[in-house]
Amino acid sequence: MIKSIEWRNNKIRFLDQTRLPLEEKYVETDDPEVVAEAIRRLSIRGAPLIGIAAAYGIALAAHALISTPYSHSRSALQKVIQLFSSTRPTAVNLFWALNRQRRILESSSDKSSELLAIALLAEAMRIHEEDAAMCDRIGELGSSLMPSGAVILTHCNTGSLATGGRGTAQSIISTLWEQAKLKHVYIDETRPLFQGARLTAWELGKLGIPSTLVADNTAAFLMKKAMIHAVITGADRIALNGDVANKVGTYNLAVLASYHSLPLYVAAPTSTVDFKLEDGKNFPIEERNAREMLEVNGTRIAPPGTKVYSPAFDVTPGSLVSAIITERGILRSPYERAFDELRRDPIDVSSETA
Amino acid sequence: MIKSIEWRNNKIRFLDQTRLPLEEKYVETDDPEVVAEAIRRLSIRGAPLIGIAAAYGIALAAHALISTPYSHSRSALQKVIQLFSSTRPTAVNLFWALNRQRRILESSSDKSSELLAIALLAEAMRIHEEDAAMCDRIGELGSSLMPSGAVILTHCNTGSLATGGRGTAQSIISTLWEQAKLKHVYIDETRPLFQGARLTAWELGKLGIPSTLVADNTAAFLMKKAMIHAVITGADRIALNGDVANKVGTYNLAVLASYHSLPLYVAAPTSTVDFKLEDGKNFPIEERNAREMLEVNGTRIAPPGTKVYSPAFDVTPGSLVSAIITERGILRSPYERAFDELRRDPIDVSSETA
Repeated sequence: MIKSIEWRNNKIRFLDQTRLPLEEKYVETDDPEVVAEAIRRLSIRGAPLIGIAAAYGIALAAHALISTPYSHSRSALQKVIQLFSSTRPTAVNLFWALNRQRRILESSSDKSSELLAIALLAEAMRIHEEDAAMCDRIGELGSSLMPSGAVILTHCNTGSLATGGRGTAQSIISTLWEQAKLKHVYIDETRPLFQGARLTAWELGKLGIPSTLVADNTAAFLMKKAMIHAVITGADRIALNGDVANKVGTYNLAVLASYHSLPLYVAAPTSTVDFKLEDGKNFPIEERNAREMLEVNGTRIAPPGTKVYSPAFDVTPGSLVSAIITERGILRSPYERAFDELRRDPIDVSSETA
Repeated sequence: MIKSIEWRNNKIRFLDQTRLPLEEKYVETDDPEVVAEAIRRLSIRGAPLIGIAAAYGIALAAHALISTPYSHSRSALQKVIQLFSSTRPTAVNLFWALNRQRRILESSSDKSSELLAIALLAEAMRIHEEDAAMCDRIGELGSSLMPSGAVILTHCNTGSLATGGRGTAQSIISTLWEQAKLKHVYIDETRPLFQGARLTAWELGKLGIPSTLVADNTAAFLMKKAMIHAVITGADRIALNGDVANKVGTYNLAVLASYHSLPLYVAAPTSTVDFKLEDGKNFPIEERNAREMLEVNGTRIAPPGTKVYSPAFDVTPGSLVSAIITERGILRSPYERAFDELRRDPIDVSSETA
């Protein structure tokens, strides 16, 4: 499996995803600012992976502060948490992971910078391991929903490059493949950043899973020709009514799938759920840089002076989501009730959100 | 207005649209094969313009045969018509224009290669002029359907680059602008060939019409946020029940518009109607080259070995088309009846199709 991020010799080693698929370049750094910048410019991307990277980033900062007085470490680390909070606004896993680190920081009673650094690293590793386990569980649960000989349409990238494990939506695809239940995957190229063409095509190629790349415009055509059984996507933030913020184009797919009576499944760990928001109306929607639409790898497409509107995400209403596949079960509408049950479960997740 | 094609000194001069917007390069040729190849590789594109170019291509071939015996000219020109028939399968205007030239060829009674060449050139010019007049009429009729302060979403390119005049869907946009009824245009970039980003953004820029480029994935987002009033597209072929073949992604837009209770209008001359087909089931759908998805301007996007499925067109059922705006009136469902009335009209169009 691709290791998109690792803790190694007190450094963070990550794959620079902006170079893929042309170049498989790993960056090793002991500078938290480099990690934050990598998140900002999508060298590290995918909601779960962003959370893991931020957690490691805090551990990295703590490590550099081992020899400084404890009170100074604490306040410096609060600032580093602030720095990471500002990198990407939509993915809730980021805030969830930062909150876990904040709790470690606030509950540390040993008054030792060194012990604090160890505790923060341990928590980052726990977040990473938990994420890998979540991926496996999502794959198992999600694959049970699919028919034998399944043909899946997926959007953006939700694999090892987006998580600490084998992925969310893509974990379902890998699991189906291992179960010999998968026939084919259609990959949306996913403009503007081509995560489908660049990343998912690359990952599925490495896994030997048969796939075909299509323009995002081709989804309705595939559905009308009955060429796919289901759409599976990831999520960047989920509200209590099941509204899902995900890569722009997901809402298009949800409307199209509903029109063609096909299921659209969202696969995401419960860390993606924003337990503070009733619905998706107030999801912060990040706007991407115009250049991503105007140029491809530095080659100009549109004429000078072209204005661009480029929201990175859209919001799919829960009513169009056939099921949300989490590591803690397959949730179905009414999502309010499903999330309420999760909340009352022994593992209390409600306190863990931003 | 941009002259995307012209007859000049017994040559055809056309704008190589594959170079736009980086370069405004005109090609002058007296070789019909160069024109056919330009259609094949989309240097000349847009259903109406393809018809005009093919008609001029026949005139060009006839001109080169002026000094050859009449019987030889006739059979040679039949072959040139065959050559042009094979360039693009979906746009019916191509076959319509070629049929008009075939009728000139078959009805010529003077037994003179020179007079035949003149008649074929005159017919090509008539097709060109008629197209320009059609564009104006479509603009007038279509603009009457739009609200004041209209914000329009359009797909692909339907302007001077696609027709012999000011366009089809884009003629409506230009007319609205002149009437001070247009507020803004959103342009779908239109993967895989970026006709929106490359061509429509360029044309609207030249016309001073305010526009914003969006990824094709953004359509549903714009509709949900009530940022647009209507979608207007062109067409490559229309069946008698109103089924429309147009640039892939049009069907997506039609489903999305219907879901958001927004109108989707198709603007096309009646030469786009295939009076032989009851519905769109048997429309020939051209597949584009995989390279257009794998590379942009020679820069690789997807990894080696990536498979691609790239239909150039999709079919929108007539039931999702709010109206078809032709030069002969605004047609509405039931389209069978509307087309039947057209057929019975003094100007008989039924005999003019492939």
